[in-house]
Amino acid sequence: MSDPADLRIVAVPGFPLVAAGSDLIADMLRCLAAAGLTLQSGDVVAFAQKVVSKAEGRSVDLATIAPTSKAVELAAVVQKDPRLVELVLRESRRVVRVAKDVLIVEHRLGFIMANAGIDQSNVSGSSDSALLLPEDPDSSARRLRDEIRARTGLSVAVLVTDSFGRPWRVGTTGVAIGAAGIASILDLRGTPDMFGRTLRVSVVGHADEIAAAASLVMGQGAERRPVVIVRGLAGSAAHSPAQALLRPSAEDLFR
Amino acid sequence: MSDPADLRIVAVPGFPLVAAGSDLIADMLRCLAAAGLTLQSGDVVAFAQKVVSKAEGRSVDLATIAPTSKAVELAAVVQKDPRLVELVLRESRRVVRVAKDVLIVEHRLGFIMANAGIDQSNVSGSSDSALLLPEDPDSSARRLRDEIRARTGLSVAVLVTDSFGRPWRVGTTGVAIGAAGIASILDLRGTPDMFGRTLRVSVVGHADEIAAAASLVMGQGAERRPVVIVRGLAGSAAHSPAQALLRPSAEDLFR
Repeated sequence: MSDPADLRIVAVPGFPLVAAGSDLIADMLRCLAAAGLTLQSGDVVAFAQKVVSKAEGRSVDLATIAPTSKAVELAAVVQKDPRLVELVLRESRRVVRVAKDVLIVEHRLGFIMANAGIDQSNVSGSSDSALLLPEDPDSSARRLRDEIRARTGLSVAVLVTDSFGRPWRVGTTGVAIGAAGIASILDLRGTPDMFGRTLRVSVVGHADEIAAAASLVMGQGAERRPVVIVRGLAGSAAHSPAQALLRPSAEDLFR
Repeated sequence: MSDPADLRIVAVPGFPLVAAGSDLIADMLRCLAAAGLTLQSGDVVAFAQKVVSKAEGRSVDLATIAPTSKAVELAAVVQKDPRLVELVLRESRRVVRVAKDVLIVEHRLGFIMANAGIDQSNVSGSSDSALLLPEDPDSSARRLRDEIRARTGLSVAVLVTDSFGRPWRVGTTGVAIGAAGIASILDLRGTPDMFGRTLRVSVVGHADEIAAAASLVMGQGAERRPVVIVRGLAGSAAHSPAQALLRPSAEDLFR
């Protein structure tokens, strides 16, 4: 694989509001055509988690949620809506850290993240709905990639991206929670460096770096420009899903 | 600040090997001119930590290092060269986690990172030298930015970038350890979202996202293309150094 030296990162212009059942690929192709832009084989198309979740109908009316006593207790500590905390618990394997305003969990898909990725902002005009992560973001990415291929004949990679906080650093950065048609991690162990010595730190969170780059143009809330095209990356024959980005708990010193 | 919708990320072509005393700005301007490229005001110029450290003479001959007994003990656990471990300890405030092949410390500048950022690969043809982080990467970034302004009249932002591992995710991603002329974090708390509701998660690790994007074109080892230009980002009047990316230990649940 050769390294790329020149990337372009372009938001799909004028993307419409998304609702349950929206056809994200049809919307994307229409917006690109209207702007005189074309997709190319080898592009990476990053979809913000929010629009994938919305299109998949992952919005939940909080009025339908009856919190358990465990959720009520936890909500008092974190000072959040007990119905939201109940949803977080249902979406999680376990609670990792709790404090005022902080609820970090291991999501059922393995992500260590705040609030199980459940978002109340930008969901709708109502404050009583919440948006869950896609059921299976790697599967969402595969489906979106297959649809692009079926409608255009093009072979692209697809990422589903989110923004995660980090334990020791301030602020969120884009990460890939779903991926298809790309190597989510690049394992360069054993690759010689410029002087022929073997590289020491040589596993790269490739899909996360692409997601961070895409986040720069998505804009905050990731709804104004929820679909971003990254052009110029070298492809790889070996693909790995975003699940490959999750450190096994046996190797985790901080869980 | 308006969001950008179209970014270009370009490696400075043909960057020469760097040694102590190298003039990184002269090298960069010469390479750009040779390729018919020009810098523009508003560009962000990302320098890989390795070339900044080398130019600043931060290479250490391990033969000159006498490890303390503490370093020898620790080296036996992590299975690294005791002289390297001694350097790591000298560069650190404290050890955070130790295991075979793992030595995570709090660097004297506050970064929680492996091996205090000390690198043995790509340093020279010898296996007996190690490269420390710059003495003060924010100061390095300011100096590089000032030099660009002095020689070209252009106002750019400068990042010094490195690659850090993450506790729960596999692989490294680019991060900013030094920054000048840019808001390292974007604090959007209180900004209304598309529906007028206040955004909940709204502090963005902006300089880290730029560093991750730059890392995509730097290539592994970050020496082949150690200087990368990011064009098209919206500027900000309020600047903050990379130190602003460090979570205060009082707010840290994982240290």
